[in-house]
Amino acid sequence: MVLQGYFRSSAAWRVRIALNLKGLGFATVARHLRKREQAAPDYVAKNPQGLVPALEVPGQGVLTQSLAIIEWLEETKPLPPLLPADPWGRARVRSLAQIVACDIHPIQNLRVLAYLKHELGQEQPAIDAFARHWIEAGLAALEARLAREAETGRFCHGDAPGLADLCLVPQLGNARRFGVELSPYPTVLRIEAACAALPAFQDATPDRQPDAE
Amino acid sequence: MVLQGYFRSSAAWRVRIALNLKGLGFATVARHLRKREQAAPDYVAKNPQGLVPALEVPGQGVLTQSLAIIEWLEETKPLPPLLPADPWGRARVRSLAQIVACDIHPIQNLRVLAYLKHELGQEQPAIDAFARHWIEAGLAALEARLAREAETGRFCHGDAPGLADLCLVPQLGNARRFGVELSPYPTVLRIEAACAALPAFQDATPDRQPDAE
Repeated sequence: MVLQGYFRSSAAWRVRIALNLKGLGFATVARHLRKREQAAPDYVAKNPQGLVPALEVPGQGVLTQSLAIIEWLEETKPLPPLLPADPWGRARVRSLAQIVACDIHPIQNLRVLAYLKHELGQEQPAIDAFARHWIEAGLAALEARLAREAETGRFCHGDAPGLADLCLVPQLGNARRFGVELSPYPTVLRIEAACAALPAFQDATPDRQPDAE
Repeated sequence: MVLQGYFRSSAAWRVRIALNLKGLGFATVARHLRKREQAAPDYVAKNPQGLVPALEVPGQGVLTQSLAIIEWLEETKPLPPLLPADPWGRARVRSLAQIVACDIHPIQNLRVLAYLKHELGQEQPAIDAFARHWIEAGLAALEARLAREAETGRFCHGDAPGLADLCLVPQLGNARRFGVELSPYPTVLRIEAACAALPAFQDATPDRQPDAE
């Protein structure tokens, strides 16, 4: 399989962790977002949305949208599982993942920040504050839930890493880039540390990717 | 079951369609977003994120995040299905749904537009243009895929309505509110018309909800 991505894209980073946790080898093709390589005709032919990541599966085609890709990995290579077995637990994990994937990351994504700069004439401090605002709102909700819900274990759900963890960790990478103060989120940080001890997470970090700057 | 929502929330609208398609009865509790009722302590106790929708399931608890709620409905009441049976088709439908649920709706959501107005001092025309920009980018990607992919049928995937359709239709409601010109998206409009013929979609429109203004 070939992952079309970008070292710093947190959506591509999620998929890298999932592939690593599943023990699936993959090649990487880098699409440099600041150089707009994701808008190149050969890439838009694969993914009309012009966003990373996309996963090319030999003999089948191209999958897009990180959560859809990861659910496909889960359905086609179920072990080790990234979702619990019971529907209620699965809904819990998906909802935690979607706090990141729907309500934090898309709002603080590069293309939105570029719009604030170029179309709305905002200065960098205001742009960074915008990104921090949505990251902090989402992390506060995640901390509240993870701290109080009984299903939280060593990881977001129990004692094995899964879909919520692989969304959370890249989002924390973005949080640090924008200077978010993370001490209000101790449960989140504890889970991040548990993830950071695992090779599947270590090998997926941006600095270890071939296109890292 | 009780759906905590808001008549105009496109995420709550998605869940209403899903419940209707599954033939599941539900009561509605309205949380008026412009009055910030979703930030009321009794609601934040149910959903620390302070966003709608939330689905209260008697004897079990509260589910949040519209796509997680709908996947739970699919797993606990599989018929009629909202996702195809094959993993590749499921990934396709989820990716179409996530174009809306991750990459359009959260960016043009009320709370983001309120930030542009109050924190960044933007005037209404610039705010509306911001909303249209992200809606148009997403609809262009959806149109490109739906028009060229062989799996598209009477609905987004084949000839029965599903997860992608129930995300698409409410997003078109938002598109019209912001004045998006929809003629560049003929396949999208054709599918919307097919959905509009179904009672499950008709009964879920904002104007038919008890809190409609």
